[in-house]
Amino acid sequence: MPEHPNADVRMKGFASRTTVEAAIAWIDSVLPDIQRLATDEVDLFAASGRVLARDVTSLVNVPSFARSMMDGFAVRAEETHGATAYNPIGLRILGTCLPGVPFPIAVGPHEAVRIMTGAPLPTGADAVVPVEETELDGESVLVQSAVSPGKHVGQVGEDIRLGDIVQPAGRRLRPQDVGVLSSIGCGRVPVIRRPRVCILITGNELLPAGTPPVGHRIADANGPMLAALVARDGGEPILSDILLDNPSAIRAALHAPAEVILVSGGSSVGQEDYVPRLLADEGELAVHGIAMRPSSPTGMGRLDGRMVFLLPGNPVSCLCAYDFFAGRAIRALGGRSQDWPYRRVRVPLSRKLVSTVGRVDYARVLVRGNAAEPLAISGASVLSSATRADGFVVIPADSEGYPPGAEVEVWLYAAE
Amino acid sequence: MPEHPNADVRMKGFASRTTVEAAIAWIDSVLPDIQRLATDEVDLFAASGRVLARDVTSLVNVPSFARSMMDGFAVRAEETHGATAYNPIGLRILGTCLPGVPFPIAVGPHEAVRIMTGAPLPTGADAVVPVEETELDGESVLVQSAVSPGKHVGQVGEDIRLGDIVQPAGRRLRPQDVGVLSSIGCGRVPVIRRPRVCILITGNELLPAGTPPVGHRIADANGPMLAALVARDGGEPILSDILLDNPSAIRAALHAPAEVILVSGGSSVGQEDYVPRLLADEGELAVHGIAMRPSSPTGMGRLDGRMVFLLPGNPVSCLCAYDFFAGRAIRALGGRSQDWPYRRVRVPLSRKLVSTVGRVDYARVLVRGNAAEPLAISGASVLSSATRADGFVVIPADSEGYPPGAEVEVWLYAAE
Repeated sequence: MPEHPNADVRMKGFASRTTVEAAIAWIDSVLPDIQRLATDEVDLFAASGRVLARDVTSLVNVPSFARSMMDGFAVRAEETHGATAYNPIGLRILGTCLPGVPFPIAVGPHEAVRIMTGAPLPTGADAVVPVEETELDGESVLVQSAVSPGKHVGQVGEDIRLGDIVQPAGRRLRPQDVGVLSSIGCGRVPVIRRPRVCILITGNELLPAGTPPVGHRIADANGPMLAALVARDGGEPILSDILLDNPSAIRAALHAPAEVILVSGGSSVGQEDYVPRLLADEGELAVHGIAMRPSSPTGMGRLDGRMVFLLPGNPVSCLCAYDFFAGRAIRALGGRSQDWPYRRVRVPLSRKLVSTVGRVDYARVLVRGNAAEPLAISGASVLSSATRADGFVVIPADSEGYPPGAEVEVWLYAAE
Repeated sequence: MPEHPNADVRMKGFASRTTVEAAIAWIDSVLPDIQRLATDEVDLFAASGRVLARDVTSLVNVPSFARSMMDGFAVRAEETHGATAYNPIGLRILGTCLPGVPFPIAVGPHEAVRIMTGAPLPTGADAVVPVEETELDGESVLVQSAVSPGKHVGQVGEDIRLGDIVQPAGRRLRPQDVGVLSSIGCGRVPVIRRPRVCILITGNELLPAGTPPVGHRIADANGPMLAALVARDGGEPILSDILLDNPSAIRAALHAPAEVILVSGGSSVGQEDYVPRLLADEGELAVHGIAMRPSSPTGMGRLDGRMVFLLPGNPVSCLCAYDFFAGRAIRALGGRSQDWPYRRVRVPLSRKLVSTVGRVDYARVLVRGNAAEPLAISGASVLSSATRADGFVVIPADSEGYPPGAEVEVWLYAAE
């Protein structure tokens, strides 16, 4: 394979590094230019967790008929005037009114209908006396308290009025929101289409994910990790076979149909790091080299309306670069909050946490007994930092770190 | 349809109510008796978010060969002794060592091999000098700093040793955990099978979910809501058609193949509330009627090794009863934490929140400008409380509520 003419110059590292803030600002500035995602219509049972593409307006009243809110007796309120436990008023029971079934007879003077919660109020009745405030007396009911008109009755449109916006565009639907959509008859739900995220894994040394290592070749760890991260953030992960470090194969793959392209590996300035150059040739390499650790050899840019993120092949760096940059873009494109989907806790440090001024540090920590313990190994290995860790602390570029006992904000890694 | 002989007595409400604590204690006491769930083997790409059924032990060393941790030059460390920027030591470059490709020649005295991060260390070399600490000089490299043996070399088994437990049983897998499993060649992952949760929706007045209301019939809101809640909590929701309020249909459905049965509707003591009686006849009705609001007409019990939860048909009550009781059991059966999957915030109340001593209250609130605002309508309607709400406050049974300005803990409803 021919060496890059400037291989050794390029191996020397980045001439300058972009700040994390500037890289994020670039992402946010570009997002509006990425093609707006079309609307999907999904079944109600697949809608929880999705983001509404437009306002959903009710075409019905809920309830669409006056209904009882209690088990009791439907009455004409005026008939109960003056009723007390010592002076109950007797009404003749006409029958029972059940949910879903209109009662066939109107309630007249001195009459009542036994009624269940949710049943339509019979014609003539205008209130419900709860069963607890009655006694039976043969074919009659003794009403022991007065009710005013409308008491314990759910009026037409009381919950949702025809024409109401039931759920606004942009809402991420929760289980109960789906319940409401169901009750207004919205069986198909308009949601923002998931951004397609093409995951390109490069590296001659890589075997397919989940394969035992053979000789000097190792299994791809980043493909399944990135696929899980993308799915967590509302994207649709699209994986291809592992790409060799071969410019023409990588160039073709960069044109995959997707809103976002993630490339793992070959993102630095070494002689085998073709990807930044290819992106610069084919589109725009807006940022390359970031003042942070790990993930310094991260790049990002655009290609024909796609956002492209060049992630380091080292798994911890890949995770960190995804979390800082790519995940933010994917969540935003899918209509979600750009914020990290991690919980935060404020806890004291059990040991000092050292950083270098001029770069942002992503320090993995254990959380034990309400204290954060920095992981001794801050380097490259997956096991020793990203999976042993419970979360991470971000040390800003202007900080040299924190002494033992300092309160820090830990972002807790989540399962999904 | 024949009336229950004691219809009117039964309509009078519960003779006594179980406390929330006692109901939860019953669930926790019964969980160990529910059949242990078998293990599923899932593909690595489907493993994120699942719970490991057993320890995963590595059958390989990672790395399985000594490899470079930097871009630079592989050398014999002793050769660099005394090297500085002012007194560099020249070594002849034998070639380039790339990831995945063993270098064919051993490194001898006064020799070096250009090496990329991740490439196997050539025979003879025992350290790497980072490229930043070198200069090129024709076919030689000038080493400007001394390295000790092993410097910048990832040793065999440094990350994961053969025989190490890489992930323990019971761990809920995060994206980076899946990456680690990939790197040890674990392509199929042993996870706890999702508990099957049969969702039975009862009610003569109900139309299928997502259907516009017709006449006095309304669409089922609880089916899609419960399906989303069950999926969120790691269960496998199984939905059937809506069941009529018909004892024989309900009786048959209670025997569905599942670990958990949820029945929505007919859970109270009214004349149409067959389910508690049926569960008592077929199995065990351990709890019926709970000192809480809403969700007082909640029941729970067992039937041939299944846990059965009787949830009120009212959607808000159904949500609340699910969250307090059924969700806890489903999460536990699937190996997850029993805790609510909701984030908590502590904020002051903007208005007073009144409760009644003797019952637990589940009060829906808005969170606005760092304050919790109780929703005025605390009743039954879906829209006005559970979907307008951002979260809920639990008021314990011994409390009369809180004055304005009191700090309360709000559990924020989440999307998934």
